[in-house]
Amino acid sequence: MPRVYNFSAGPSMLPQGVLRRSADELEDYNNTGMSVMEMSHRSKTFMAVYEKVYAKLRRVMDIPDTHEALFLQGGATLQFASIPMNLMKGHESADYAITGFFSNKAYVEGQKYGGARVALSTKSSDYTIIPLQSSFTVDPKAAYFHYCHNNTIFGSRWPYMPETENVPLVCDMSSSILSEPVDVSKYGIIYAGAQKNMGPSGLTVVIVRRDLMGNALPYTPSVMDYAAQSQGESMVNTPPTYGIYLLGLVLDWLENLGGVTAIEKRNREKAKLLYDLIDDSNLYRASIAADSRSMMNVTFNLGNVELDAEFVKQAAKRGLVSLAGHRATGGIRASIYNAMPIEGVRALCDFMKEFEFDYGK
Amino acid sequence: MPRVYNFSAGPSMLPQGVLRRSADELEDYNNTGMSVMEMSHRSKTFMAVYEKVYAKLRRVMDIPDTHEALFLQGGATLQFASIPMNLMKGHESADYAITGFFSNKAYVEGQKYGGARVALSTKSSDYTIIPLQSSFTVDPKAAYFHYCHNNTIFGSRWPYMPETENVPLVCDMSSSILSEPVDVSKYGIIYAGAQKNMGPSGLTVVIVRRDLMGNALPYTPSVMDYAAQSQGESMVNTPPTYGIYLLGLVLDWLENLGGVTAIEKRNREKAKLLYDLIDDSNLYRASIAADSRSMMNVTFNLGNVELDAEFVKQAAKRGLVSLAGHRATGGIRASIYNAMPIEGVRALCDFMKEFEFDYGK
Repeated sequence: MPRVYNFSAGPSMLPQGVLRRSADELEDYNNTGMSVMEMSHRSKTFMAVYEKVYAKLRRVMDIPDTHEALFLQGGATLQFASIPMNLMKGHESADYAITGFFSNKAYVEGQKYGGARVALSTKSSDYTIIPLQSSFTVDPKAAYFHYCHNNTIFGSRWPYMPETENVPLVCDMSSSILSEPVDVSKYGIIYAGAQKNMGPSGLTVVIVRRDLMGNALPYTPSVMDYAAQSQGESMVNTPPTYGIYLLGLVLDWLENLGGVTAIEKRNREKAKLLYDLIDDSNLYRASIAADSRSMMNVTFNLGNVELDAEFVKQAAKRGLVSLAGHRATGGIRASIYNAMPIEGVRALCDFMKEFEFDYGK
Repeated sequence: MPRVYNFSAGPSMLPQGVLRRSADELEDYNNTGMSVMEMSHRSKTFMAVYEKVYAKLRRVMDIPDTHEALFLQGGATLQFASIPMNLMKGHESADYAITGFFSNKAYVEGQKYGGARVALSTKSSDYTIIPLQSSFTVDPKAAYFHYCHNNTIFGSRWPYMPETENVPLVCDMSSSILSEPVDVSKYGIIYAGAQKNMGPSGLTVVIVRRDLMGNALPYTPSVMDYAAQSQGESMVNTPPTYGIYLLGLVLDWLENLGGVTAIEKRNREKAKLLYDLIDDSNLYRASIAADSRSMMNVTFNLGNVELDAEFVKQAAKRGLVSLAGHRATGGIRASIYNAMPIEGVRALCDFMKEFEFDYGK
């Protein structure tokens, strides 16, 4: 079957060139006579892969020397525990901004490790908005302020970086990392599961300010201790080697396109095509307030569940797949991460216009 | 370059047919127009992959209904913490058998979560033996008795299953799982990182007796809680989907060969070729006592470090690679996991005879 346009929210589409390259190298990487996934993580060949990916990520994200980059396992959900385990010592609580499903999960998990305070919640507005900075306060004694930059399920995105003064800013960027430039120096921790913009599931990238490491709670598992992982070059135990290699290929692809500045332009263009169509339509209804919309997950609905389902079904016949919204929200979700080509978004727009012609009023 | 015989201790050799199949399917799995690693873990296609792998593992290992099988992340090292977090409640300590590097790491990590008692240690004999059952006692109040079936670094293997009466038997089988039949019903927990006999690093298989689940300590991260993972079909968060798919291909390969009974026969044959040669030689010295030798990691040395290094160097020129022993032990280690064909072992034996002819006395 030809490749489809895959709008899955994650794991999600990867650049086809990355897949082709990894397939070509699967039985023999770089004349070693073996696959990257068969190599000892301590071998010279894999260490060279690792060092290159590490340097590339630092370069692409412009990570300053003040920050470490770790390649871990367990997904963002394990970080929901790792973050308080590493940062809570000497503090009574941490602040959480709850603007969606995963930021709420982070808060619930955070409660296990000390006080977790709701600094703001948009639950009462069904997570359709991101509040202004002026509408909430930050506890100056908080261990950190946690927020989720892009809410994958609801399709919202913080249009600004929260100002937290001396409280370390901790951000789940699972569904927006590498999609636009970020001033890493402003963050205490940025973390992300790889399976949206970076590679396969099973790899988690954690960028942490060096001075925040070294204070883990006594019951922190050693692989979750940032200081230990930093000292061990993310190899306190065997890292997810194939995921690290694939991240390297994705970063090569991204650098060739012009890096995060170029991809942001492309991502804005892709999102604008869809949001403009939705806003001009009588059939499609955007789920999120205009100023808080995600560039990665475009959510909307057609007013009734039967029509939503028909839309998803007919789209799939056209090779536009995985458009059903999350089971918590229903509706439609078009996830248009970095690897989704603009042709895929145009094909979706063409289909949406036709569908509206057939089913709209 | 042609494929080499890769004696790496892990990550390690995979069956070439598995690599070829996964390469073939990398851009289009089963007419879906996408790779397995691009699919939502909740999609019908991936759920079908997952259900098949789950059933296959249960079938190949003959896992009884009393036991659950989980596909997790974090490697055996995260399990060193997960095990006490899940099993320590209501107990004052757990028993550890220390017979090598990783069992000692498990013990050190275990100390964070309550009492950890050394039931036995073979450190004084440089981990070259596995003691008899009669030489140690099990604390009848212990939360569990932990041991490592096959010591990857030292090349030893428990020739018997410890008898622990009512104390749950917990076993790290990272480097021997699927290499021989195991009576799963006798174990409280069997766990293993995938990167030796099952697939790529980043996937961890945990087999746990159902009645041991549901008592996690309050600070257990949700992805480490066996009961939560069992209830969520190993999808409390996004699992390492590609690793699970590859495990499925490895299990297909293993079933085609005749399963664990057939592979054990082959593994015994492979190990015997090497140990017989070593025992008949004046140059090679086996590291481990005859009754405690590993079928997976054959360790020996040539009497001095220069000669060990020369051996490794010349072997590599013949396409016999990754034979250097672990940095903690030096010497030579030939890891001959399931995927190492007997031809690879024969090629190593031929080289060893020639090398002894040239360098022996």
